Amino acid sequence: MESDPDLLAFGQAVRQLRLARDLSQEELAHRSGLHRNYIGGIERGERNVGVKAIFALARGLGCAPRDFFGA
Amino acid sequence: MESDPDLLAFGQAVRQLRLARDLSQEELAHRSGLHRNYIGGIERGERNVGVKAIFALARGLGCAPRDFFGA
Repeated sequence: MESDPDLLAFGQAVRQLRLARDLSQEELAHRSGLHRNYIGGIERGERNVGVKAIFALARGLGCAPRDFFGA
Repeated sequence: MESDPDLLAFGQAVRQLRLARDLSQEELAHRSGLHRNYIGGIERGERNVGVKAIFALARGLGCAPRDFFGA
């Protein structure tokens, strides 16, 4: 599967924010109500994440949705 | 269809940014490579827009993806 730069950038932002909070993918999955495998796929840039999951991830990480989209 | 507050908020942000640039939905659709009906659905909060379309909308509007996600 060809990687998409926008999805990769988004996935890396999720990963950095998760690691900065010392959370495992499992813990983030639990906090955001998403499946652990889905979190892994997001971070690898394999998922075209929708707005609803973006807000769920932000709630799970305690950050703002805009934080996933860089400067 | 029950409206989702996160999708409604996102749709309103797209609409405001589009109107601020005096663009029609048709023009934004053309600039972002998305279908005009899809733009209408996004602005009504009916579409769970994915990251790829978020970046396409930002390119079409000449703004940053984070601008869709408020302060």
